[in-house]
Amino acid sequence: MAVYTNVSDDALAAFLAEYDLGEAVAFKGIAEGVENSNYYLETTKGRFILTLFEKRADPADLPYFIALNQHLAANGFSCPLPVAASDGQALRKLVERPAVIITFLQGLSPRVPSAAQCRQLGMGLAQLHQAATDFEQTRRNDLGPASWPSLWNGRAANADALQTGLADKIDQDLAQIRTTASLSDTLPRGTIHADLFPDNAFFLGDRFTGAIDFYFACTDALAYDVAICVNAWAFEPDGAFNFSKARNLIAGYESVRPLQDDEKSAFPTLCLGAALRFFLTRLIDWTDTPADALVKPKDPLEYAARLRFHRPAKSIADYGGA
Amino acid sequence: MAVYTNVSDDALAAFLAEYDLGEAVAFKGIAEGVENSNYYLETTKGRFILTLFEKRADPADLPYFIALNQHLAANGFSCPLPVAASDGQALRKLVERPAVIITFLQGLSPRVPSAAQCRQLGMGLAQLHQAATDFEQTRRNDLGPASWPSLWNGRAANADALQTGLADKIDQDLAQIRTTASLSDTLPRGTIHADLFPDNAFFLGDRFTGAIDFYFACTDALAYDVAICVNAWAFEPDGAFNFSKARNLIAGYESVRPLQDDEKSAFPTLCLGAALRFFLTRLIDWTDTPADALVKPKDPLEYAARLRFHRPAKSIADYGGA
Repeated sequence: MAVYTNVSDDALAAFLAEYDLGEAVAFKGIAEGVENSNYYLETTKGRFILTLFEKRADPADLPYFIALNQHLAANGFSCPLPVAASDGQALRKLVERPAVIITFLQGLSPRVPSAAQCRQLGMGLAQLHQAATDFEQTRRNDLGPASWPSLWNGRAANADALQTGLADKIDQDLAQIRTTASLSDTLPRGTIHADLFPDNAFFLGDRFTGAIDFYFACTDALAYDVAICVNAWAFEPDGAFNFSKARNLIAGYESVRPLQDDEKSAFPTLCLGAALRFFLTRLIDWTDTPADALVKPKDPLEYAARLRFHRPAKSIADYGGA
Repeated sequence: MAVYTNVSDDALAAFLAEYDLGEAVAFKGIAEGVENSNYYLETTKGRFILTLFEKRADPADLPYFIALNQHLAANGFSCPLPVAASDGQALRKLVERPAVIITFLQGLSPRVPSAAQCRQLGMGLAQLHQAATDFEQTRRNDLGPASWPSLWNGRAANADALQTGLADKIDQDLAQIRTTASLSDTLPRGTIHADLFPDNAFFLGDRFTGAIDFYFACTDALAYDVAICVNAWAFEPDGAFNFSKARNLIAGYESVRPLQDDEKSAFPTLCLGAALRFFLTRLIDWTDTPADALVKPKDPLEYAARLRFHRPAKSIADYGGA
């Protein structure tokens, strides 16, 4: 949960005056997201989310994210639409931070998604990939395989402190990934969400109503996005792999965009890589977050357990694919 | 900011099934309030706030707060209305905590209220007192003068650590209050909000649109509520007393409910008492809140400065009253 920056009613009124959105009638900080400050904003013309980008966001990346959301929304994918001010610009400044007003998206994030929701999520992910097909901007995946050795560098003792012997295993995973790292260059590439966890997906009942929080979006292998989602959606809170959920997710995806043979054969490695990426960033957050921080870091061992599951996987059939 | 309790989508759906409010279409934790967990809840039938009462709320008091809000709303005062479930009960349980759904109130809380808003707030406070006139339930003010000596007991060193010589001054204030403590028994009594700070009041522009967070409401001297508001509304962020704001607040109040002579002559003492009450609870929170707490305590020295202002005050004229 997080609201890092307070916005006074006066600052908000001055900010809104640059838009054609009427006047604010409600404004409440949302305890959501760990990177930015988010506010529920209701004006005389509608309901919105106001996001202030905090330190971790690179301002140079923000125009890409805004353009991507605008492109996706224009191409029929349900996601928040950045709202342009009267001068045509959606990306602005508020309380000395980059800020954007986006449209409000209905739906609830599942805490423990159902198998039916996993199928819908797979379809939604494929629709996202298709809606982005002719999006021309690109962004390097800063958290791709090339970054993992440096993320891991100097963290072996932290890993072993969490679980004896874990550091050796991570070394082996990195070595294996290195031999297949070129994968993501040869597989079909495009714009991926790269962080489509359940708290970034909305549903009404089992129906997928859209995705939010595209602030890790980048250009990478499309199937890697599916692998991220298998990690994020197909494991139970106790760590158990739920075969039905993974199968549904992949089947839902393939009902919209069938995977190619090379994507299928790379799938176990992509799943291992995705688990490694989240293990490494969680390990860093776990180690580096001060005890009095407002946001509690997520447990890296959840992803150490995912890695254990992926290591022996031989094919996409182990995930319910065919 | 605070969301202490997470509510899963499944738990929410089961909870909502007890109401005639349709299904949830949006649900977001609000970073607001320091005592309870609050969620923005949108259903197919409207918009609401879901509150879960955390440890500091005494469950025995909750029916009083709910009945008071229902009474005020029924008598034309703008405040959230607790929504009854199909069985007629508004106070329920969710995630093992007392929970209530209340209606959504439009408006924004001023960070630095204007003098015009202070006048409106004074009128609103008097309207609240009038709307509660025939509310029959009573609740003792747990934080009234009788409680102050025990709140202060053992805290002298904490006060002096904040400001040398402060403890002696507080001792003197308590002695002075003691000689006038019977005041609140002889002055006109009724139901007071007792915590109507700017973050508990909503405005659209300068227009007061209602009050929230009645969880300190109790039966006490009506003029004491005015004195609390003078402390909360008529001092600038730098601690300076704003005479225009105090004058407007009192004039606004009196335009609806004129103060009696005995209330006027007691006013400086009531202001001193109100400042003491918030100084003492802030001092305790300041001292006792662990460094890693989610909610940062408020600075007690703000109220030590208020006390310095009130000590030499001789009459309500010092606050702009007549």
